[in-house]
Amino acid sequence: MKLDPETDLSFTRKLAVPRALVWECWTTPEHIRHFFVPRPHEVTSCEIDLRVGGRFNTVMKVGEHEMDNKGVYLEVVDGEKLVFTDAYSEGWKPAPDPFMTAIILLEDDPEGGTTYTAIARHRSPEARKTHEDMGFFDGWGTVVTQLEEYARTL
Amino acid sequence: MKLDPETDLSFTRKLAVPRALVWECWTTPEHIRHFFVPRPHEVTSCEIDLRVGGRFNTVMKVGEHEMDNKGVYLEVVDGEKLVFTDAYSEGWKPAPDPFMTAIILLEDDPEGGTTYTAIARHRSPEARKTHEDMGFFDGWGTVVTQLEEYARTL
Repeated sequence: MKLDPETDLSFTRKLAVPRALVWECWTTPEHIRHFFVPRPHEVTSCEIDLRVGGRFNTVMKVGEHEMDNKGVYLEVVDGEKLVFTDAYSEGWKPAPDPFMTAIILLEDDPEGGTTYTAIARHRSPEARKTHEDMGFFDGWGTVVTQLEEYARTL
Repeated sequence: MKLDPETDLSFTRKLAVPRALVWECWTTPEHIRHFFVPRPHEVTSCEIDLRVGGRFNTVMKVGEHEMDNKGVYLEVVDGEKLVFTDAYSEGWKPAPDPFMTAIILLEDDPEGGTTYTAIARHRSPEARKTHEDMGFFDGWGTVVTQLEEYARTL
């Protein structure tokens, strides 16, 4: 898909696990807890209603702080594409100050495993830079590493 | 659906035209031009890709000014529910400063015709008030009247 370098961040990785398993990890609350935030941070709660407009709510424990993240799925293409955002909560209620829209793309790797693309789209160049400075590449990269390690145990 | 009186505006009207025809008017570029903005304002262009994430772009002529509105469909339930917003353009590109999310709900009226509900959800009470002060009820009400009159000629 066409990205905007001014406002978007993205990377692609090859994972040594089947596409169906990567999809299952991304769409199952019990699996989400095992990879969704870089350790030692924790996901303490996850609610998924896997449909367009359905909720994707997580609670994270970052040090002493609990962070309550409400979001929805914008697009769900089984096994291929998952789009979610904090710009809405369930029922299409707009968030006052949304941060980003995430797109996860999965393809079969011709040599086996999965080609995994993660995209974060932002409202402004400033928001992109904030996300990059927060450690987007390290953070989201660690998440994929954790996902791959966890998926291999399933 | 559950609304938030702090941030949402809505009304319900009964229309003397069948639900399928109201749906067709709302989802066909040629029809949109006939009712979508209160006359004497005009829709000079309309592009529709009727699917989740597809574009709903219009150009309006308001007096001497051309207003270019880019948006997408968030949810499309054939004949029943249409959700669209200016919070994204095609490809899930977030807009810098979105104004609202619109929800059109259509039901068969037991006495014939269609029960039509229009909802505008906003990011803040201030945005709701701005929309109300801009003439939400008059404007969107006129749109429905124009739609009903036009649909009866089809």
